[in-house]
Amino acid sequence: MKTIGYAARSAASPLAPFDVTRRELRPNDVAMEVLYCGVCHTDLHQARNDWGWSQYPMVPGHEIVGRVTAVGRDVRRYKAGDHVAVGCMVDSCQACDQCRKGLEQLCRKGNVQTYNDKERFSCEPAEPTYGGYSKHLVVREEFALRVPDGLDLAKVAPLLCAGITTYSPLRTWNVGPGSRVGVVGLGGLGHMAVKLAAALGADVTVMSRTADKQADALALGADRLLVSSDAEAMARAANGFDLIIDTVPVRHDINPYLSLLDVDATLVLVGQVGPLAEPSTVPLLLGRRRIAGSPIGGIAETQEMLDFCAKKGVHPDVEMIRMDEINDAFLRLERADVRYRFVIDMASLVPAQAG
Amino acid sequence: MKTIGYAARSAASPLAPFDVTRRELRPNDVAMEVLYCGVCHTDLHQARNDWGWSQYPMVPGHEIVGRVTAVGRDVRRYKAGDHVAVGCMVDSCQACDQCRKGLEQLCRKGNVQTYNDKERFSCEPAEPTYGGYSKHLVVREEFALRVPDGLDLAKVAPLLCAGITTYSPLRTWNVGPGSRVGVVGLGGLGHMAVKLAAALGADVTVMSRTADKQADALALGADRLLVSSDAEAMARAANGFDLIIDTVPVRHDINPYLSLLDVDATLVLVGQVGPLAEPSTVPLLLGRRRIAGSPIGGIAETQEMLDFCAKKGVHPDVEMIRMDEINDAFLRLERADVRYRFVIDMASLVPAQAG
Repeated sequence: MKTIGYAARSAASPLAPFDVTRRELRPNDVAMEVLYCGVCHTDLHQARNDWGWSQYPMVPGHEIVGRVTAVGRDVRRYKAGDHVAVGCMVDSCQACDQCRKGLEQLCRKGNVQTYNDKERFSCEPAEPTYGGYSKHLVVREEFALRVPDGLDLAKVAPLLCAGITTYSPLRTWNVGPGSRVGVVGLGGLGHMAVKLAAALGADVTVMSRTADKQADALALGADRLLVSSDAEAMARAANGFDLIIDTVPVRHDINPYLSLLDVDATLVLVGQVGPLAEPSTVPLLLGRRRIAGSPIGGIAETQEMLDFCAKKGVHPDVEMIRMDEINDAFLRLERADVRYRFVIDMASLVPAQAG
Repeated sequence: MKTIGYAARSAASPLAPFDVTRRELRPNDVAMEVLYCGVCHTDLHQARNDWGWSQYPMVPGHEIVGRVTAVGRDVRRYKAGDHVAVGCMVDSCQACDQCRKGLEQLCRKGNVQTYNDKERFSCEPAEPTYGGYSKHLVVREEFALRVPDGLDLAKVAPLLCAGITTYSPLRTWNVGPGSRVGVVGLGGLGHMAVKLAAALGADVTVMSRTADKQADALALGADRLLVSSDAEAMARAANGFDLIIDTVPVRHDINPYLSLLDVDATLVLVGQVGPLAEPSTVPLLLGRRRIAGSPIGGIAETQEMLDFCAKKGVHPDVEMIRMDEINDAFLRLERADVRYRFVIDMASLVPAQAG
């Protein structure tokens, strides 16, 4: 199937129209028209090869919402017209202990990423994966999520990465009513961490170097802002958190936050990829505190998160853009100039643009 | 009560005889003659002010075994002649949530360390604490442990720090039959980690940069040695551990060990105090892996550990020294030239030496 998208041809080139071929439907495949695609900070990192493993041409996008156009003969869960979503992965081995536990994101053989990866399990020879900056997508049934009624389609997309990446650690570390949750970084992930933790009944504190974000934090549902440069406020907050979700996507110092953790509590990193600026072992030793990482979430947990958001009326705050505005959006994203997630209206991508 | 000990008068001076005054017995105090005292790497760090919080004169020693000589009028658990032990702490607030849970090491007001600290809770004005490099000691009943019959008194001392510091994380992280435990560093703590993990039924791997320690590791009860400089062996061992206990007391790189952890598994630091050489977030993110710290253990858990060692016949490997050999022992400890713990025979300290 021929379709169109936007691709980076190299680390230095802006995204531009690109012809995409999608595979013919296999028996367990779902074909969808992409309606909206979120713009994740990862898209920027990957398009520019910040992590060193980019393959070109690259069609980014892993926060994808669409409408089913056709299904393979064995597909039972979806039919044409259904609203479906695709997140950060499109396949896994489906056989290892992690996949069997519903932790496909931790598949022993590695999950297949929605873009900048190869279809290692389903296609022989393996084909490159192209993401949601594209008019159409084909995905195996097991990696399509159902978009529940009651969610605003135009806002759902960021749930597929920013949403699940923050929901999964909240669930892994048993956050519920009364849990004391801190959120570091108030971007795409951070704003979802605040909304989801609040919806789970937690007492939520946004941590920020300055007081600028006070009004925003409260508007998102946080109970307060803690200014990390205020030594007195930080001392008062010591031992006061059960979980801190650190969403900062670049190298930074986590030491100020470690002593805010209570005994046995965890700071979970969900944003930064790379060497962590030297944490001190002292707060770890003195409070049996923990540092962890958490990658997206499994398919069942992602569906649970979508259903939870529908039930609780949780939506990301989005700014809608046209496909041809993506390069400007990347520049603004780099300056953290977005509240809080760009979403591409894929209706703005028309065939005439392809090349 | 006047007694004698060995003290450091400054960070630069060798340990030398020192007159020690112990408080008169309060109703809940136990007085003991010290029979044996282990030599912990911490004693060396503290005597030399490596961590910057040393107070002089300092009488080190927090692996203490002795015989009760007298008890206060309210003491019920011990009587003269009983064999008792004292570890790294001699008091805590006894009122906070952590103390009430038996986690005195995590007391909200800070526990009182056996030496290089002040008796903040029990004495007004607070008096400095002096450790087990001393002929006699007075401690409140709640911080005295019972030495169970069946343990070799001359070898018990290292259990009070090296033993509990490794036993506590083994219990916190639910190690039992079949658990896959790694031990990094084969000194005083590491050799106890191996013995205790094996006694708990775990499959134990010692991790070392070279193959030199293979025979020692197996002799201690490990199932194998993994050579961390052998890239192929390390790759084969990936995802293969439920818990890694890292006992290395100096700055080192933990990155080679992180990818050995299975999903949700933890590397727990029990040795190094200070900034941790930059860990990469990548293995944390890709396996939801965790880094933690763990400080000694609570009093009830320490008693449990002593009873466990008596039941299982677990003893530290010790090298007995005389009190006046302590400065040479420190030099050898610095070179890791001891298998695996020096223990001072306190009978070697006679009053004529005091000054």
